[in-house]
Amino acid sequence: MAKKLIVQKFGGSSVANVERIQNVAKRVADYKKKGNDVVVVVSALGDTTDELITLAGQVTNEPSEREMDMLLSTGEQISVALLAMALHKLKCQAISFTGAQVGIITDKSHTRARIVKINCDKIKEELKKGRVVIVAGFQGVTPEQDITTLGRGGSDLTAVALAKELSADECEIYTDVEGIYTTDPRIEPKAKKLAEITYDEMLEMASLGAQVMQARSIEVAKKFDVPIHVRSSFSANSGTMIIKEAKRMEDVLVNGITLNKGEAKITICDVPDKPGIAAKIFKELALVGVSVDMIVQNVSHLRSTDISFTVNKPGLAKGIKITKSLAKEIGAGEVLQDEDIARVSIVGVGMKSHPGVAANMFGTLAKEKINIEMISTSDISISCIIQKKFAEIAVKALHEEFGLSK
Amino acid sequence: MAKKLIVQKFGGSSVANVERIQNVAKRVADYKKKGNDVVVVVSALGDTTDELITLAGQVTNEPSEREMDMLLSTGEQISVALLAMALHKLKCQAISFTGAQVGIITDKSHTRARIVKINCDKIKEELKKGRVVIVAGFQGVTPEQDITTLGRGGSDLTAVALAKELSADECEIYTDVEGIYTTDPRIEPKAKKLAEITYDEMLEMASLGAQVMQARSIEVAKKFDVPIHVRSSFSANSGTMIIKEAKRMEDVLVNGITLNKGEAKITICDVPDKPGIAAKIFKELALVGVSVDMIVQNVSHLRSTDISFTVNKPGLAKGIKITKSLAKEIGAGEVLQDEDIARVSIVGVGMKSHPGVAANMFGTLAKEKINIEMISTSDISISCIIQKKFAEIAVKALHEEFGLSK
Repeated sequence: MAKKLIVQKFGGSSVANVERIQNVAKRVADYKKKGNDVVVVVSALGDTTDELITLAGQVTNEPSEREMDMLLSTGEQISVALLAMALHKLKCQAISFTGAQVGIITDKSHTRARIVKINCDKIKEELKKGRVVIVAGFQGVTPEQDITTLGRGGSDLTAVALAKELSADECEIYTDVEGIYTTDPRIEPKAKKLAEITYDEMLEMASLGAQVMQARSIEVAKKFDVPIHVRSSFSANSGTMIIKEAKRMEDVLVNGITLNKGEAKITICDVPDKPGIAAKIFKELALVGVSVDMIVQNVSHLRSTDISFTVNKPGLAKGIKITKSLAKEIGAGEVLQDEDIARVSIVGVGMKSHPGVAANMFGTLAKEKINIEMISTSDISISCIIQKKFAEIAVKALHEEFGLSK
Repeated sequence: MAKKLIVQKFGGSSVANVERIQNVAKRVADYKKKGNDVVVVVSALGDTTDELITLAGQVTNEPSEREMDMLLSTGEQISVALLAMALHKLKCQAISFTGAQVGIITDKSHTRARIVKINCDKIKEELKKGRVVIVAGFQGVTPEQDITTLGRGGSDLTAVALAKELSADECEIYTDVEGIYTTDPRIEPKAKKLAEITYDEMLEMASLGAQVMQARSIEVAKKFDVPIHVRSSFSANSGTMIIKEAKRMEDVLVNGITLNKGEAKITICDVPDKPGIAAKIFKELALVGVSVDMIVQNVSHLRSTDISFTVNKPGLAKGIKITKSLAKEIGAGEVLQDEDIARVSIVGVGMKSHPGVAANMFGTLAKEKINIEMISTSDISISCIIQKKFAEIAVKALHEEFGLSK
């Protein structure tokens, strides 16, 4: 077998304690021993990042974003040092680097920085010496040497970006599940691991609530065609390949069902039906950082309308406050909120060319006597907002209906 | 009052929790508000460094020193970020830097690196903008951008070196005691806080067991004549000034009594009285990293001698092993060990010109019926090894005898 260059990314749960770090080291060393070049990207140990955020919250309500990055980037620095030590113990040559040391240059948007360029000279030099190169995920540095972080799930982005810059043969994303499933196996035990999935499908899955990989990193992988292998750090089984186009002859209609219970619904009743009102509402919400997901507006009788939208639950209180004050200002009616909702979605590149899929989905839910409150569609997905208590029933019924259980 | 530039160093106990960090921020902000420029050097929070060392110990017995520095340097990085946030909360402009960012360049001796040069441009630039500059203590970076640490107590060194490079008006070392005392107040309640002490006296005190300041940092302060003010971070009282020459007219004979219970004694009996034997013994011990303190050799009858020396207790097991194998090799007799010893020392620049001090010390111990096992002297100190159980009695008697209690 020819020598390969591989980028392996291990998430927080894969390095949650010393024993797991040693397991990761063993896996890396084994791959290295076969004569391959390995670059490892590591997240912070277990809940370290959350603990640091809590600590900052005890000091101040409004931490400066620059100092937040200074603080949070220590988490990954601890991981890379410990993993290097674990590899040394296995007599495997290895060296660790921070994002700054390895030359991951970003813009100045602290806490959500974008990678501008990566200088891979240092990595290549160390690989040439026969060493495993361990890079702290999630972090970079501005041209002025200020430490930045790439946002939640940023280690995935580090891995994909390095794989691209190094022209790696593969980018392995190690996690605590075996791969990407047709749906959450905790809800539907019949869920099947997918052998492969396209970037587009994975993007829909990621943004719709499947928390295996960060959406931005999949976008980058898609853009530069980086083959990704999502697999478990606790087993030797192969996982799911994320690729440009599925190698199957005919695209299946639906490839996965996702569920998101993390949103709440806000409805403004009797909004005057005038141009610019919707724009005003969502601009104000964006300004205070409330991220809006689905939006539905029905034109109704008497020149007024109802507007409903969903927000992430942490943004609900802020969203309601803004919305109520705006409703008053524009002369709208009552503002309603509903936290007991769930978003159920079906995803699949095949549905592009099969117009009957939506009707099939709605019919399946109707058969279960589940009322649909909001609908939203994209090229390769259809999402319905339903009452939360029916979420699991809906997932199972759709999983069955679209032939994913067989 | 003219504008001053001050370097303030806060140790781990001063920033052990969020409340203490906020207290430190208040003190820094107050000083800044008076129109002064402030550079703050911070250690890791409380026991963070020890916790990280424990973590590394769980991964491997022999952590690489480069990776150890990568790991440990995160402790101070956390502190500086949190202190910056606390200052922001008080509406005090502040910015934090790692040792690398601020340009503290060291040699490549990981875990005990020496500062080669400091580029203060960045600090001066930020001070000009009216900001408090917070620098992570204990750490630096090699010209190749590898992170290094300066050894135990290294934050003191960072502070003194920055004070020198910035030509600061004063270097304040904040700690959990009110200053330097004539002896440990927990042993002798009559111990007095010294208003001032010379660099040389402080060096003796530091190396003899007073743990207030790292010896290397005092050496640097002495070399460049950096005025140091050791004081408490928990009170507004002034502490002890460490200076070149005491301003008092006549040097007092003895300025302090120190006690060190952290050593053990090893004796090799009947060592053949041949040249090179002692050199061989201490070279071997140095090679395995056992640090030897006092050495006493008595030439005796029959062309053989006894050699006694003290080692730090953590090195005792290793020291005994080496010594026993060497004793066999060179044809010496029994090897004895004694952990129940203590080192009591008197320190004072005045004793240089007063030859009777040693006799006075020995007489005082004799009066208390305390047997002296080993004696060692320097220009400005005299140390005696005695049985540990008499340590406190010895300290009190000497404190009284040399007039420190009045």
